[in-house]
Amino acid sequence: MSNRGRFFVFEGIDGCGKTTQVERLVMARDGFSSFEPGGTELGQALRTILLGTGEPPVPMAEALLMAADRAQHVAQVIEPVLERGIDVISDRHVASTIAYQGYGRRLDLAALETLNLLATQGLVADLTILLDLPVEVAEERRRHDDPDRLESLADGFFDRVRAGYLEIAAAAPGDWVVIDAAQEPDAVELAVLEALAERGL
Amino acid sequence: MSNRGRFFVFEGIDGCGKTTQVERLVMARDGFSSFEPGGTELGQALRTILLGTGEPPVPMAEALLMAADRAQHVAQVIEPVLERGIDVISDRHVASTIAYQGYGRRLDLAALETLNLLATQGLVADLTILLDLPVEVAEERRRHDDPDRLESLADGFFDRVRAGYLEIAAAAPGDWVVIDAAQEPDAVELAVLEALAERGL
Repeated sequence: MSNRGRFFVFEGIDGCGKTTQVERLVMARDGFSSFEPGGTELGQALRTILLGTGEPPVPMAEALLMAADRAQHVAQVIEPVLERGIDVISDRHVASTIAYQGYGRRLDLAALETLNLLATQGLVADLTILLDLPVEVAEERRRHDDPDRLESLADGFFDRVRAGYLEIAAAAPGDWVVIDAAQEPDAVELAVLEALAERGL
Repeated sequence: MSNRGRFFVFEGIDGCGKTTQVERLVMARDGFSSFEPGGTELGQALRTILLGTGEPPVPMAEALLMAADRAQHVAQVIEPVLERGIDVISDRHVASTIAYQGYGRRLDLAALETLNLLATQGLVADLTILLDLPVEVAEERRRHDDPDRLESLADGFFDRVRAGYLEIAAAAPGDWVVIDAAQEPDAVELAVLEALAERGL
């Protein structure tokens, strides 16, 4: 499997700058850009349901839909691209479920870990990069965006999500790097590339 | 909870006569008729994905979508109706996942049991009625229908599903009754009503 691609994931609350940094790492690695939820045709249909205006899913249904999206994404996109020797850089993956549905919506963490395991069939990212940012700063950056359903949640939710991400990253330092996303994009990019170099990735 | 409604489920391969018998039991019990997948607004959107012409979900994604549909169905329909003291009669529930995705598509049974537990949050049917029919007879009954994706699977699949249903029912005789669905509808209905009466339901 020496020619297998590397799998890198960016995580963080909305407004932390994931989209920009995914693009930059894709350029740096000549990699493949993807995202969850919605990185497949099935995922696009699910994303419409998850972010749409219809009957909102109950929290467990939401978690199961996210897992379904992820199972399709892993099987149809991530694994085949890695097999071709190309790096995959994904905007969100398993930790989003733990942070948002677990810490944010307070669903049982062990149940969500089980769902993640079913969805990924054991695939683990080579490195997950947490772009950490205070919630106030992220909200200020996003103040002109249209809020959608997932993003228009009551205060306190995003504080729990941010704290959740930091706990997850602290518990698995070999798999994670935490980068201060309040820095300029160039400085964040440099920190990402240094983190990869330090780990020989 | 003495005024809580009863929860009855019909299971079996397509063509076994579930739809007819659900309607008859709904009449007999002045109950509420429902079904999986698709018994909610969210479920209808998922049903379109599951039975549609787009990119088919990989087997685990399919199982996760079924579980999402079920979580919504239990939370938004079954539990609230039971709470109002009304019986719910559902065309398919948890055993369909075990029979179709487990025995049919050979996904891990323990994983599917976990998904069912997450989706139902512990709700268990008062009685599940298996309308058992040889696959050839079911196919003969359905020969004029339009095959859809789930139903147009290669031979052997439905034999595994039928055998799976019989195993599940045999393992939990207190929760299941198996009825010969090759009988006339009136005879099947009578057997259903007798099974309920015998159990004091």
